[in-house]
Amino acid sequence: MKRIELVLHNRAYSIQIEYGLLFRLKEILAEIAPGDRRFLLVTDEVVAELYGKRVLESFAGLLVDLFVLPSGEENKNLENLNRLYDYLIINGYERRDVLLAFGGGVVGDITGMAAATYLRGVPYIQIPSTLLAQVDAGIGGKVAVNHALGKNLIGSFYQPKAVLVDPSLLDTLSERELRGAIAEVIKYGVALDYEFFVFLEENVAGILEGDRFLREEMVARACELKAGIVRQDELDLGVRAVLNFGHTLGHALEQLGEYREYSHGEAVSIGMVAVFAMAEELGLVERGDKERVIALLEQVGLPVRLKGMYAKERIKESIGKDKKKSEGQVRWVLPERIGKAKINCIVPEKILDRVLLDLMG
Amino acid sequence: MKRIELVLHNRAYSIQIEYGLLFRLKEILAEIAPGDRRFLLVTDEVVAELYGKRVLESFAGLLVDLFVLPSGEENKNLENLNRLYDYLIINGYERRDVLLAFGGGVVGDITGMAAATYLRGVPYIQIPSTLLAQVDAGIGGKVAVNHALGKNLIGSFYQPKAVLVDPSLLDTLSERELRGAIAEVIKYGVALDYEFFVFLEENVAGILEGDRFLREEMVARACELKAGIVRQDELDLGVRAVLNFGHTLGHALEQLGEYREYSHGEAVSIGMVAVFAMAEELGLVERGDKERVIALLEQVGLPVRLKGMYAKERIKESIGKDKKKSEGQVRWVLPERIGKAKINCIVPEKILDRVLLDLMG
Repeated sequence: MKRIELVLHNRAYSIQIEYGLLFRLKEILAEIAPGDRRFLLVTDEVVAELYGKRVLESFAGLLVDLFVLPSGEENKNLENLNRLYDYLIINGYERRDVLLAFGGGVVGDITGMAAATYLRGVPYIQIPSTLLAQVDAGIGGKVAVNHALGKNLIGSFYQPKAVLVDPSLLDTLSERELRGAIAEVIKYGVALDYEFFVFLEENVAGILEGDRFLREEMVARACELKAGIVRQDELDLGVRAVLNFGHTLGHALEQLGEYREYSHGEAVSIGMVAVFAMAEELGLVERGDKERVIALLEQVGLPVRLKGMYAKERIKESIGKDKKKSEGQVRWVLPERIGKAKINCIVPEKILDRVLLDLMG
Repeated sequence: MKRIELVLHNRAYSIQIEYGLLFRLKEILAEIAPGDRRFLLVTDEVVAELYGKRVLESFAGLLVDLFVLPSGEENKNLENLNRLYDYLIINGYERRDVLLAFGGGVVGDITGMAAATYLRGVPYIQIPSTLLAQVDAGIGGKVAVNHALGKNLIGSFYQPKAVLVDPSLLDTLSERELRGAIAEVIKYGVALDYEFFVFLEENVAGILEGDRFLREEMVARACELKAGIVRQDELDLGVRAVLNFGHTLGHALEQLGEYREYSHGEAVSIGMVAVFAMAEELGLVERGDKERVIALLEQVGLPVRLKGMYAKERIKESIGKDKKKSEGQVRWVLPERIGKAKINCIVPEKILDRVLLDLMG
């Protein structure tokens, strides 16, 4: 078991990473949230189908109810948040009771948002079921729901009481989900930690094959890197922007493909190649770094080139809509070398054009 | 002008109290929220009618839009909160833009809740228009909306960037609103500050007649007392419960009368007499204190007896539903003397019975 302490201005909590943790939740909850409380396990249809029964059984003797959300990003909305409010109110949940968010980013975000606002705040615990949620969305207290006019427009910063990570959950991810999530893991190495990048280069084959020790190690190190950034910038006012590494082009591609063509991780993979290419053109990184990053992404089976289905101008237009722009300028996160990145960079249009054409070539 | 600094764990803001402040808002906002920002003035129909035009004129040159909510507690709901979200999103409000909550508790609560959750938090400024909001709801960052099944069930603790209090707004309150709000002001003296109680005894006639200096002084001292409690207990986990002085019976009476029979202040007035009577029976306060409190309430024209329209058992049932109970027991806030109160008190049923019968007699 690995434990990361996340100490923030006015609260502290721990992230526990352990293979099989899910099946001794009762014991762990007795430690984290002792005393006479009710628990509401919030999950979605897919996760409930896969794990619901086994997890509920592991709670025997605790007061636990189950609330199942429909699966999918399109359900992360005010309507489902209101359904959860209704459930909490009708069933008389009180301020000391605990919500357990067991699922991917959608479940974590809706549950966290309900916890942030029900009775002006009740405790919640993140139990992320996907690799992406384990190393990213589950940590840091950013919770939100979408609005018809945009993603994550209604939300809060509300830290969980704990984050419980079971890498055994990776075993049920689809191949595509797993590879996509590893793109985000690679991002941590590339943007923040050279040693972790080397660890991934050396071990990615074993990770893909399902080596338990390596998967736990990978998850723990990625969580530690995410926690380190949150520690520095809880409210996303500065350095936390480094986590958008590869995301400026990534978001644009996701949007153009209406979230079907490219998964998030696939889009970010291409986005990371793009920022290395830009940084190379600008003389920020040494030759060879980009190729190392590409080699690792390819080993995972992630895309590193645009398939040429979108015109350059449409891609640029989509980039321009990205919310990370400020004062009319798109702000990029660019690498300085593998393991170090710089936020708020301006990239001349000529260079952006050349890089996009290269990626399509 | 009086200024109270409210320094909390991770933010600080000031409460400014000044006669006529409302008509130099532009100047004040340039100080508090400088730079290139948009402002959204949120208010309700009644306040817009009375002040909207003059206030908007005083903003000449600033980017200010106006959003008008329907008046009344029944409109403090998720539906109106969602209308406000829609407005902010459709009109492209950004993270640095500022919401101005200009109205009573309903406007302050909805606007604060929107500010707490739009884009995970944007700044807002409380400009309370009623005495009750000036000395209570406007200070302390408790924001919420009601749910069909209960009041304030969806909410947050989210501190404003500033609280701007103009006692000249009291001039347009109805006689009944003014007297009711003074009940809450008297509560601060009775529960927290003997000197302030004496100030009210000596000056309440002048305050009712409209003496500007005395009204500003009264508002400033009540704000200071509220701020002092918030400083000690931002998240309402302990001593802030002292502000429920007189509210346990008060809430019960409001509910029984369906919020029409007694105004909040009137119900709290009777509630304060009740807790003094209980404390007297329990030997907590000296003889004579209750009579002094009653004399002050009567001078304001507030009720100090039950009109005998509810059976004792119905009142007790309604008290039992109050959310301040814990482990099945109703927790009372009782006086120890004028200016000092004690939270979490248990009152034997026999004494409650006797006090209720006395109040009806």
